[in-house]
Amino acid sequence: MSLAARVRNFIEQRGLLRPGDAVVVGVSGGPDSLCLLDVLCRLDWRLTVHAAHLNHGLRAEAGREAEFVRAEAAARGASFHLASVDTRAYASAHRRSVEEAARELRYDFLARVTAQTGAQTIAVAHTADDQAETVLMHFLRGSGVAGLRGMLPKSGKGEQPVIVRPLLIAARSEVEAYCTERGLQPMRDPTNADTTYFRNRLRHELLPALETYNPNIRTTLARTAEVMAGEHELVLRAVDALWDEIACAGTEAVTLHRARWRARSVPEQRALLRRAVQLLRPGLRDIDFAPLEAAVRFSRDAQTGRVCDLADGLCLAVDYESIVLREWSGVTLEAAVPQLKADGRLAEGWEFRAFPVAGWSPEESTPWRVFVDARALAQPVGLRRRRDGDRFQPLGLAGHHVKVSDFLINRKISAPLRAGWPLVVCGEAIVWVAGLRLDERFRITDATQAVVGLEFGRTPV
Amino acid sequence: MSLAARVRNFIEQRGLLRPGDAVVVGVSGGPDSLCLLDVLCRLDWRLTVHAAHLNHGLRAEAGREAEFVRAEAAARGASFHLASVDTRAYASAHRRSVEEAARELRYDFLARVTAQTGAQTIAVAHTADDQAETVLMHFLRGSGVAGLRGMLPKSGKGEQPVIVRPLLIAARSEVEAYCTERGLQPMRDPTNADTTYFRNRLRHELLPALETYNPNIRTTLARTAEVMAGEHELVLRAVDALWDEIACAGTEAVTLHRARWRARSVPEQRALLRRAVQLLRPGLRDIDFAPLEAAVRFSRDAQTGRVCDLADGLCLAVDYESIVLREWSGVTLEAAVPQLKADGRLAEGWEFRAFPVAGWSPEESTPWRVFVDARALAQPVGLRRRRDGDRFQPLGLAGHHVKVSDFLINRKISAPLRAGWPLVVCGEAIVWVAGLRLDERFRITDATQAVVGLEFGRTPV
Repeated sequence: MSLAARVRNFIEQRGLLRPGDAVVVGVSGGPDSLCLLDVLCRLDWRLTVHAAHLNHGLRAEAGREAEFVRAEAAARGASFHLASVDTRAYASAHRRSVEEAARELRYDFLARVTAQTGAQTIAVAHTADDQAETVLMHFLRGSGVAGLRGMLPKSGKGEQPVIVRPLLIAARSEVEAYCTERGLQPMRDPTNADTTYFRNRLRHELLPALETYNPNIRTTLARTAEVMAGEHELVLRAVDALWDEIACAGTEAVTLHRARWRARSVPEQRALLRRAVQLLRPGLRDIDFAPLEAAVRFSRDAQTGRVCDLADGLCLAVDYESIVLREWSGVTLEAAVPQLKADGRLAEGWEFRAFPVAGWSPEESTPWRVFVDARALAQPVGLRRRRDGDRFQPLGLAGHHVKVSDFLINRKISAPLRAGWPLVVCGEAIVWVAGLRLDERFRITDATQAVVGLEFGRTPV
Repeated sequence: MSLAARVRNFIEQRGLLRPGDAVVVGVSGGPDSLCLLDVLCRLDWRLTVHAAHLNHGLRAEAGREAEFVRAEAAARGASFHLASVDTRAYASAHRRSVEEAARELRYDFLARVTAQTGAQTIAVAHTADDQAETVLMHFLRGSGVAGLRGMLPKSGKGEQPVIVRPLLIAARSEVEAYCTERGLQPMRDPTNADTTYFRNRLRHELLPALETYNPNIRTTLARTAEVMAGEHELVLRAVDALWDEIACAGTEAVTLHRARWRARSVPEQRALLRRAVQLLRPGLRDIDFAPLEAAVRFSRDAQTGRVCDLADGLCLAVDYESIVLREWSGVTLEAAVPQLKADGRLAEGWEFRAFPVAGWSPEESTPWRVFVDARALAQPVGLRRRRDGDRFQPLGLAGHHVKVSDFLINRKISAPLRAGWPLVVCGEAIVWVAGLRLDERFRITDATQAVVGLEFGRTPV
């Protein structure tokens, strides 16, 4: 069956485009996007097609590619839109990798062209092979259902333009065959700049290796994406029902009904908390497993008045009747977190203890209770406030030194709270920025023989 | 932290065992199971431990291994239970691979010992590495959420004994270190008979390769299992709610409310249908994607009175107000499926057509509408009843020839329906065992240039 006919059916069945639509097509000039442009222009659906090409400013041939796309668009009666950007400058200004920067700039550009032309939809040329690679990449990174959906045939939410992917049902080899058959001569990008080194290795080494385990691995993975998209819908349905019962969302905070929260299972709480974070941080791609698990444990166990860190400047505060997810900077109540007074003593109502532990498991850690290697503690631990120039080695950053003040500011912890923030120290070394992060040097390893627990709690009344 | 303490915590937190329990431990004599036996016997929980060893009859050393396990059990005050089976004979009698047969026989044996001793629980020694391999294997085979959960810390439903896996939090290397430290000298099985060739390749080739993409891949995959177990719970919750609204389960059939069914989305229908099949076929490990999708499409589009094949002898029948999943053998109403009369004509009310197709996509196939390669049809197609000795090459069986009568009997289609079952033929060749399976030789391939559709339908009134 011809590729064009299958793409047409896919567009119809999934409602990607309708006759008469105006659509912006991202065209790099490579085989995939050239094929997409050609198929859409021949669709005979009275589409208004805008070909949009972004010069990323990464390679010398970029100018030639733009002219090529301009000519191909003109030959098909499509309008042509061009912009040039300095991807490397953007990447360094926004602390992105070059690939991430290129991606963001490209989608920004496509959205701009969509707005300028009054088009409804952006079409991009991802194939079934791209989909297989995406699913595999997410799998290797440990994604849940949401990530294993891969790329959706139709995506975009809220006020963003709709993005459609009509070639998701086509293998890369089919696209190449189409180009040959139609006499198209796409540009070849020798560096494949749109593709990361990681993805290139997946494509050229890992997927061929996986084919020796399952010869249809690409089809299988593309189908996994489809199955997961369906299961994700069911998960969303379940979370919707829970959300209405338990959560109340504002623009700066999400409030959870504490008694109803406690009646739910861990997976339900995990899903609700993830949704709450997404609401307050729509830009955050995903939240890591470990802080989410710690926050869930905290929400189940913590006493009234306690606060724990969650992600990206957000914290979870346990109140009498509710649990509130909000900005750290919005936390003003000093009673919510243990504070050290100017004389170095803990504020009224709080206590700190260090205690030897017989049986330990990571599941018992919470933001305010951690476990460290006893052997690393050469002296008894103590508490003190932050001093200028304080640095520590946050767990998980491979031994990098970070300024404690930067660390607290990044967490969006307000200045008054920062001043009294408790540090657990052992001699000169900072063991634990309490409530937030352990120091790498004190963590428990396979070689640990004895464990010490460190904990902040409310003084028993 | 010591392995024993971590295992103990895991057992406590997940409620795998309680003090005073009687537990049957499967002990092959290898490092994992010897470690598990040792840890459980030293747990000081007043457990009654039964060591159970099955001689699979596959290797000459098996007798020596049994004696070894007997001595290790005795040294720890555990009782010892031994049985011998002929795995190869069982495998050939039940059409299983040797590995599948070994697995089934092993769990049967453990369940038997559990019943004989009055124990509550079976403990097996799967480690975090086994878990990572299982998740990866399911991923390569295209599993959804249910499969990517891997092995559960605690499983077993209905009247089956509970199976627990206390070592799931331990890496294989930790188990080896434990054995060394405790002076245990496990038996080494050079052929690793419990492990398939496929799994061995995963272990020794693929996982090390994946570590070059993600150095923590084993931990990541073990965590994926945990995340998926949580998401699976949410999916189940969503399906529970739908089920109560739409489905009514009997012992031999599941009835679905047709109007409410039609109001649901495809992923919801897919999940409901999967659950219905699991209810009627609890032994069926999973249902393939393609027949499930075809059945979902059928349930949405089919006219009243139509029946389609689903899996393992089950069919889906569309009635006026309901859709019924039941045994094919329970289908008596001849009007439900197109039947050929003795003179070769289609029964009243049915028609068959073959038609050229311009744009085709696999999504348009249903059990009663298929698409074939026009070039493979050297003559016009016709209909006839089954003759003695008829054979065809069912799609997906790599060209193997299968007797049509065996095929129909395996589908549990009743004798009267079998007699009049319509075969679509082209000369001497069987093109399609209608409603059930296409012949391999007529399928659409990448080389297909023209497509013919074949369809059974009700005569318009």
